[in-house]
Amino acid sequence: MTQFPEINRIEYEGPQSKNPLAFRWYNPSEMIEGKSMQDHLRFSIVYWHTMRGTGSDPFGPGTAVRPWDDGTNSVDNALRRVEVAFEIFEKLQAPYYAFHDADVSPEGETLAESHSNFDRIAKSLQEHQEKTGIKLLWGTANMFSNPRYMHGAATTCNVDVYAYAASQVKKCLEVTKMLGGENYVFWGGREGYQNLYNTDMKRELDHLARFFHMAVDYAKEIGFEGQFLIEPKPKEPTKHQYDSDAAACLNFLRAYDLLPHFKLNLETNHATLAGHTMMHELDYAGHQGALGSIDANTGDLLLGWDTDQFPTDYYLTAQCMLMILKHGGLGSGGVNFDAKVRRESFEPIDLFYAHIGGMDTFARGLKIAAAIRAEGVLENFVKERYSSWDGELGQQIEQGQASFASLEKYMLAKGQAAPNASGRQEMLENLINRYL
Amino acid sequence: MTQFPEINRIEYEGPQSKNPLAFRWYNPSEMIEGKSMQDHLRFSIVYWHTMRGTGSDPFGPGTAVRPWDDGTNSVDNALRRVEVAFEIFEKLQAPYYAFHDADVSPEGETLAESHSNFDRIAKSLQEHQEKTGIKLLWGTANMFSNPRYMHGAATTCNVDVYAYAASQVKKCLEVTKMLGGENYVFWGGREGYQNLYNTDMKRELDHLARFFHMAVDYAKEIGFEGQFLIEPKPKEPTKHQYDSDAAACLNFLRAYDLLPHFKLNLETNHATLAGHTMMHELDYAGHQGALGSIDANTGDLLLGWDTDQFPTDYYLTAQCMLMILKHGGLGSGGVNFDAKVRRESFEPIDLFYAHIGGMDTFARGLKIAAAIRAEGVLENFVKERYSSWDGELGQQIEQGQASFASLEKYMLAKGQAAPNASGRQEMLENLINRYL
Amino acid sequence: MTQFPEINRIEYEGPQSKNPLAFRWYNPSEMIEGKSMQDHLRFSIVYWHTMRGTGSDPFGPGTAVRPWDDGTNSVDNALRRVEVAFEIFEKLQAPYYAFHDADVSPEGETLAESHSNFDRIAKSLQEHQEKTGIKLLWGTANMFSNPRYMHGAATTCNVDVYAYAASQVKKCLEVTKMLGGENYVFWGGREGYQNLYNTDMKRELDHLARFFHMAVDYAKEIGFEGQFLIEPKPKEPTKHQYDSDAAACLNFLRAYDLLPHFKLNLETNHATLAGHTMMHELDYAGHQGALGSIDANTGDLLLGWDTDQFPTDYYLTAQCMLMILKHGGLGSGGVNFDAKVRRESFEPIDLFYAHIGGMDTFARGLKIAAAIRAEGVLENFVKERYSSWDGELGQQIEQGQASFASLEKYMLAKGQAAPNASGRQEMLENLINRYL
Amino acid sequence: MTQFPEINRIEYEGPQSKNPLAFRWYNPSEMIEGKSMQDHLRFSIVYWHTMRGTGSDPFGPGTAVRPWDDGTNSVDNALRRVEVAFEIFEKLQAPYYAFHDADVSPEGETLAESHSNFDRIAKSLQEHQEKTGIKLLWGTANMFSNPRYMHGAATTCNVDVYAYAASQVKKCLEVTKMLGGENYVFWGGREGYQNLYNTDMKRELDHLARFFHMAVDYAKEIGFEGQFLIEPKPKEPTKHQYDSDAAACLNFLRAYDLLPHFKLNLETNHATLAGHTMMHELDYAGHQGALGSIDANTGDLLLGWDTDQFPTDYYLTAQCMLMILKHGGLGSGGVNFDAKVRRESFEPIDLFYAHIGGMDTFARGLKIAAAIRAEGVLENFVKERYSSWDGELGQQIEQGQASFASLEKYMLAKGQAAPNASGRQEMLENLINRYL
Repeated sequence: MTQFPEINRIEYEGPQSKNPLAFRWYNPSEMIEGKSMQDHLRFSIVYWHTMRGTGSDPFGPGTAVRPWDDGTNSVDNALRRVEVAFEIFEKLQAPYYAFHDADVSPEGETLAESHSNFDRIAKSLQEHQEKTGIKLLWGTANMFSNPRYMHGAATTCNVDVYAYAASQVKKCLEVTKMLGGENYVFWGGREGYQNLYNTDMKRELDHLARFFHMAVDYAKEIGFEGQFLIEPKPKEPTKHQYDSDAAACLNFLRAYDLLPHFKLNLETNHATLAGHTMMHELDYAGHQGALGSIDANTGDLLLGWDTDQFPTDYYLTAQCMLMILKHGGLGSGGVNFDAKVRRESFEPIDLFYAHIGGMDTFARGLKIAAAIRAEGVLENFVKERYSSWDGELGQQIEQGQASFASLEKYMLAKGQAAPNASGRQEMLENLINRYL
Repeated sequence: MTQFPEINRIEYEGPQSKNPLAFRWYNPSEMIEGKSMQDHLRFSIVYWHTMRGTGSDPFGPGTAVRPWDDGTNSVDNALRRVEVAFEIFEKLQAPYYAFHDADVSPEGETLAESHSNFDRIAKSLQEHQEKTGIKLLWGTANMFSNPRYMHGAATTCNVDVYAYAASQVKKCLEVTKMLGGENYVFWGGREGYQNLYNTDMKRELDHLARFFHMAVDYAKEIGFEGQFLIEPKPKEPTKHQYDSDAAACLNFLRAYDLLPHFKLNLETNHATLAGHTMMHELDYAGHQGALGSIDANTGDLLLGWDTDQFPTDYYLTAQCMLMILKHGGLGSGGVNFDAKVRRESFEPIDLFYAHIGGMDTFARGLKIAAAIRAEGVLENFVKERYSSWDGELGQQIEQGQASFASLEKYMLAKGQAAPNASGRQEMLENLINRYL
Repeated sequence: MTQFPEINRIEYEGPQSKNPLAFRWYNPSEMIEGKSMQDHLRFSIVYWHTMRGTGSDPFGPGTAVRPWDDGTNSVDNALRRVEVAFEIFEKLQAPYYAFHDADVSPEGETLAESHSNFDRIAKSLQEHQEKTGIKLLWGTANMFSNPRYMHGAATTCNVDVYAYAASQVKKCLEVTKMLGGENYVFWGGREGYQNLYNTDMKRELDHLARFFHMAVDYAKEIGFEGQFLIEPKPKEPTKHQYDSDAAACLNFLRAYDLLPHFKLNLETNHATLAGHTMMHELDYAGHQGALGSIDANTGDLLLGWDTDQFPTDYYLTAQCMLMILKHGGLGSGGVNFDAKVRRESFEPIDLFYAHIGGMDTFARGLKIAAAIRAEGVLENFVKERYSSWDGELGQQIEQGQASFASLEKYMLAKGQAAPNASGRQEMLENLINRYL
Repeated sequence: MTQFPEINRIEYEGPQSKNPLAFRWYNPSEMIEGKSMQDHLRFSIVYWHTMRGTGSDPFGPGTAVRPWDDGTNSVDNALRRVEVAFEIFEKLQAPYYAFHDADVSPEGETLAESHSNFDRIAKSLQEHQEKTGIKLLWGTANMFSNPRYMHGAATTCNVDVYAYAASQVKKCLEVTKMLGGENYVFWGGREGYQNLYNTDMKRELDHLARFFHMAVDYAKEIGFEGQFLIEPKPKEPTKHQYDSDAAACLNFLRAYDLLPHFKLNLETNHATLAGHTMMHELDYAGHQGALGSIDANTGDLLLGWDTDQFPTDYYLTAQCMLMILKHGGLGSGGVNFDAKVRRESFEPIDLFYAHIGGMDTFARGLKIAAAIRAEGVLENFVKERYSSWDGELGQQIEQGQASFASLEKYMLAKGQAAPNASGRQEMLENLINRYL
C-alpha cells in the first residue's frame, strides 16, 4: 500500500526540466572530482521532522495532514510510519536516513518497556533497510523532550535522570550498531542552563565529560565502530547550550581528553545562531580534523530562533561544498536534511517539494564548487596572496627558526614593511557569481 | 600646572552624598571578605579612550575638547599628555593604568625612530609612576591602526608585516617590564578575516601560534614575569575575529600548547557581541583557571557594535563580582575601564563623571555580591539543587566507577527516575533584588 | 476548596521583609503623586500563561504541575479553572485579569457550540468578579492557535476564515462588554506573512482595516465603550507581523482612518524584538496620544524569541513608570503580566513567586520614578538643555514664523552657530542610580 | 589627463565573458518589458564613498590610495576630484551620480565662505554634466559630520544649529535645482537620540516637521520640482534614529501632513538593520505610493552595523527588481550605489571591480525578475491563493457591505470555515531557483 501513488521514484530530468517533482541538478551517478554525486553528498532524510513533525509552534498545535498516522503512541502506528518513511526515502533516492530513538519508537511506562518497543521497531527498520538498500547515517537518543530532562540529561542536577540518560544512550548505541549506523550523534538537547544563578557549570561539564567517556568505553565494548559526533548549537531550548559552537565543542573535547573520539556534526542554522557562517564552522572544524557530518538546512537571519528551513540558496550550498571538498569530504558523514516544511506547507506532497529542492540546491552547490576548483580561481588567488610566506623569512618563521630578536633585527635594517596588496573582496565575490 | 583645578582628589562621601564628583560606594580601604575594596577591584584607567579618544565615529570627526592636547604627533605633546593622565589617575584614586604603545608614544618614520620615541615616553611614565605610586596594569601593542596591519598582524598574509608586529611586541614587552607592568595583553585587532574566499585560516592560525610562542620565549629571556592575557572579541573590525570568545581562545591555546602561558582578559561588550553574558564568560574562564582580568564596560544590547560604554548597571557589576569572588579574585588582573565617554559628552569634566560612575557601580556590585555570599543565598540553593550527586550513585559516577551497563542496571531496577525539583528562577531573581 | 491553603492573601511587609511570599514594595493604598499605588499600576493577571500555560516548548511537552486541571477540554474543567484563577487573583491582590476566549472557554465543534460554551463560562466569570471585586482589564479572541488560522485571521487568503474570525470577535466583544471589560485588545497573532513570494500585502492590509472598521461599528452598535487596543510585535509566529512596532501600527491606523478608535498595548519583549527599548515605545506612543496599556514582562536580549519572562529589573520598571507618569498614566489600561514561569519552574507555588516578584519590581519602579520626578532631576536637565528654543528665534520657528530664507539671513550674519553643551549621558545614568 | 588609462569605457561582453572589467549582464540598451535596461535601472554613483571614502574605520585611519587627491581641503583639490569622478562615471556608463554638499565642496570658516566654495564647485559639476550627459540623481546636505551637529540638525537642542542646518539645505536645494537634480534626499544623520533621559522626543519631532515644511515651501518658492525623499535607517550613528524604517517615516509624514510631498529612498542595509528584508520595505512603501528610489548595497546579516557592501547576491537583486517592477518602477529615482569598497580593497581599480559587480548583479536581478513575471509564476500563484476573495462574500467585504453580524450569520449557518490550501513556500523558493 503506497501513500504516494501519484509519485514515482524521483528522477533526474536535467536543468531544463519544468517538473517540480524531478531533479534538475541531482544526478546520483554523475562523476565529479572522481566520485559520484551520490558519494559526495550522501543525502540523508531525518525521521523527526519528516515523519514526526506536526507543524505545531508555540502559538498553535500541528497542522500537518499525515493520513497514515493515527496520532496514537502505539507500536502499530510506529510500524506503519516505518513503511511510509521508506517509501519516501526510496522515492527521493535518498541513500540514508537518521533518527532519535523517540522518533521511531514509542516510549514505554518503564525503561524496560521502552527498550522492548525499540527492539520491535528496530527489527522493522532492519528489514526495510535490507529490502531497499537504504542505510542508517546515524542514530541518536532524544534526551530533551521528556519532562524528566527539564534540567538536562548528562548535565542534569538529578543523578537519577543522568542514569536514565545513560541507559537510553546505551540502548540506542546497541540499536545503531545493529542497524549498521555509520555514526552516532550527540546534540546537546537541554545540556546548558537557563540561568546561572542556580547552575554549577563546572560540575555539569565534568558530568558531561564522564558521560562521553562512558559512551566511548561502551562503543568499544560492543564493537561499535561508527564515528561519534557532537552537534554545536548556541541557544534554544536552553538560554545557553554548552556546545555553543565548533570552538566550544572542541575546547571541551580537548579539555577532557575526548578529542580523538569525536568529530562535529555542523548545522547551518546553528552556526548562524552562534554568529558564524556555516562556511566558517566548516573550515574551522575542517582544519582541526573534526569535520564529521552536516545537518543541511538554513535559518532566516532576521529571526532569532532555529527555523530549520530547507536550504534553497546556491551561495550557501556552494560555500558548504567548497569547504567540504577542500577538507577531503565528509567521510562517514553525510548531508542530512535537518529541515522541516513550514507549518503552512501542511500537505504530504510538500515533503517532496521540500526535499527535492534541498537535494537539488546541494547538487547545484557541488557543481559550482567543483567548477570553481577545476579552474583554481580561489585557490590560486589565495596561494598568491600568501606567497611572501613562501620566501626565506616566511619559511624560517613557519619552521620555528625565528625569534622576536631575529625579526626585529630584520625590520630595523629594512625600516618599514613591504607594501600590502588589495584583498580584492569585490572582485572575488563577482568571480563566484560567474559560476552560478 | 593642573588641568582640573576645580577638582580635588575624589573622595568617598558615602551613599547619602549628592555630590556627583564624589564616590558614594567606592571606599578604597573598606574591608570586604578580608581584603580592601581597592585590592578587590584594582581599578585601571585606559590611556587610549581617556587620553586619546576624540569622539570621532564613522559619521564625523572628533568633538572632544582637550585643552592640553595640541593635536600634533609630537613627543612634546605626548609628554604633556602624560602629565594630565597622571593628574586624572590620581584624582580618581585609580591605582592602575593601561596603554597601547601607540597611545602613549608617537609612531616614527622607521621602526628605530618609533623605538626611540617610546623610550623617551617610557622614562616619563616611569617618573610619574614613582611620584604617584600609580602602577601599570598592563601594556599592549597597537597592531591594528596603522594601514600596514590592514590584513592582520600575526595573521597577515604579508610576512614583513608579521616581522614588524613581532618587533613592536618585543619593544612593548621590554617597556612593560621596565615599568613593572603586571600583565601583557594581546587583543586580536585585525587578527581575523573579512572574507573567507581570500583567506587561509589554518595558515594564519599557525602563524598566530608561532607568534605567541615567540612572545613566551622572549618574556622568559628578558625575565618578564607578568601574566600574558588574550582578549576575546567576536567581530569588529574584522568580520570574524579569531579570538571570538573565551571558548575559541581556550581551544586555540590548547591546540597549540599555549594554555599554561595565557589567561583571558574578558570584556563585557565583547561577551555580549559574541552572544554570551559577561557572567557566562567569567564563569566559563574561571572554572578552567583562565580568568585573568576584565575590561569593565558595557554595550547596548540593541546595537550591534562595540559601544564601550561605562558600566552603570548594578545587576551587571554584581554578577561580575559574584563570579570574580567565586573564582578567587583577579590575581594580577584588574578592573580596567575600557570605556569611553559618548561623542556628545565632549567636555573634560565628563571624564570624571564617567569614571566615578563606573567605579561606584563596581563598588556597589562588590558590596551586593559580598552580601549575597555572606548569607549564602545562592550557594546554598545550588548545593541543595545538586545534592543527589552527593549520594552513593552520584559519587560513583563522579569518581569514574560507573559505566553505561551499571547505570542501566540501576535504572531497569528502579524503572523511572526520581522526580525533579523546580529550578526557581523567578524566586532567585527576586532574591537578588533584595540585595540591590 | 482552596488550591493554595498554605498561602494567605499576599500582604505588604515592607522593604525589610525576608518573606518571599510577601510584598516588599507593593503597598496598594500607599499614595504617590496623589493616587494610590493600586490606581497607578492596575495590575492584571493573564489567564493564558497563568491558567493555561503548560511549560511546553518546541523541544518538549509541558511540565507544569496543575492539580486542579484534568487536562481535558471539558466545560467542567474550564469552570474549575475559573475557581482557581480567582483564588490566585485574590491572593495576589491583583485588581484585574485578562483573557482570550480560547483560554477560558473550550472551542466546540461548530461556531454555535463555541458560543454556547463561552456563555456558560462567562456567567461563572461574572459571578466570580462580583464576589471578589476583581475586574476584567480586557478580553481578546485567540485567532492564531486553531489550524484554521494558519494563514492569518483578518489577513487570511481564505475568506471563510475571515468570516469565522469576525464571528469570534463579535462574540468576544459581547462577552467583554457583559463582563465590564475596560478594553478590548487585538494582537496580530498570525496577521503577517511567512514569505513574500506568496503574499499580497496590500490586499491583506485592506482586509485588516475593514475588519477593524467592522469592530468599531459593532462596538458602537452594542454600546461597548471600552478602549480598543492594538499590540505591536515584529515577528513570531510569522516571519513578519504587520503590527511590527508602535510606528507600524500608528501608520496603519492613520492610513485607514482608524486612529481615533485605537490606542496601543505595548509589551517590553515585543519592543526589544523590534529593536526598540520599551521606554522608546512608551514615549513614542505617548506623545501621539496612543499609550493605552502595557504587557508587563521582559525578554532576554541575547535570545531572539519572545521569552515572556517576568520583569525583575528595576531599571526597566523605573523607565516604564517614568514614561507612564510623564504621559499621564495608563487611563483605562493597566500593567498586565503577559509573562510565564520558566518550563523548569513547574510547581504551582512558582506562580506566586513570579507574580509577587513582578508586582514588587513595578512597585519599586514606580517609587523610583516618582522620586526622580519629585526632585525634578531629569525634567530640569531637559528643560535647560532645550532652553535656546525658548528664545526669540526658537519661538519664531516653533510658531511657524520662520523660513529657510529668514534662518539663512540670521546665520549669514552670525557666521557660525553657538557652541553646544555636553549631553552628559554618563552623569545622568549615575544620577538615576542614586534613586535605586 | 586620465587617471585610469588602462580602462576604457566599460562595455557589455555577454554572459560568457571572462573579463572582470566588462559587463556580463548590464547591456544598457537591451529592452525589457518595453523599456531599456538603462531606463529601468538608472544607475547612480555616489560621490561620498567613491570619491571621498578613505577606508578608515573606528580602529584605524584610511588606507585608500587615490593618486589624484592631495588630501587637502582646498577648492583646487575638490575641482580635481570632479575631473576624476566624471571619468569614473563615464567609464562605468553610469547615467547618474549623487552627492552631499560636503562631499563635493569644502566647508569654509563661515556659512558665507561655504556657500561661495559650493558655487565654484557647482559650476564645474555643471560643466562636466553638460560635457558628458551624466545627470544628478539627487543632492543632499551633510548635517552629521561637523561637530556642530553632534546633537542633531533639525532635531538639535541648539536653535542656532537648526538655523545653520536650514541655511545649508537652502543652499543645497538651490544647487541641486541648478544642476537639474531629479530628487532631493534627507537622510536623518544624527536626527535621533543617544539617550532618552536627556531627550524631548516630541519637541524634536515637531522641529523636524517644521524643517520639512520649510523645505517644501522653499522648493516651491524657487521652482524646484524634484522629488523629496526620506531615507529610513534605524540606528547608527545615534542609538535610535527617528526615521527608523519605512513605517516610522510614513507615520511621521502622515502625522505632520507631509505625506504628499515625500517619498522614500530605501536602502538594503538599513532595512536589514531594522529587522526587515529589503523586499519588505519595497513592497510596504510601494503599496502606499511612497517608493521613490533605492540605495543599492548590502549588509552582512551577522554584523550589526552598516557595512555598505556592494550588492553581489542575485536573490537580493531579483527580489528588489520584482518589487520595483510590480510597483511601476522608480519614477524619478534610481539604483544608487551607496556602497563602499572594503578597507582592504584600497587600490583605485577596486572601485571598478566593485561597481561593475554591483551593476551586473542588478542587471541579472532585473532579467530574473522579468523572466518570472513573463511566465506569471508568482503572480498566478498569488491570484489563485486569494481567489476565495473574488467570490460573492469576499467582494461584499471588500466593498464595505459586510458587518460582523452578517459574517456571523453566514458562519453560524456554515458551521466551519472551508479548508485551507498549503502555502507552498518550499515549492515557490525552488521555482525561483529555476530563473537563476
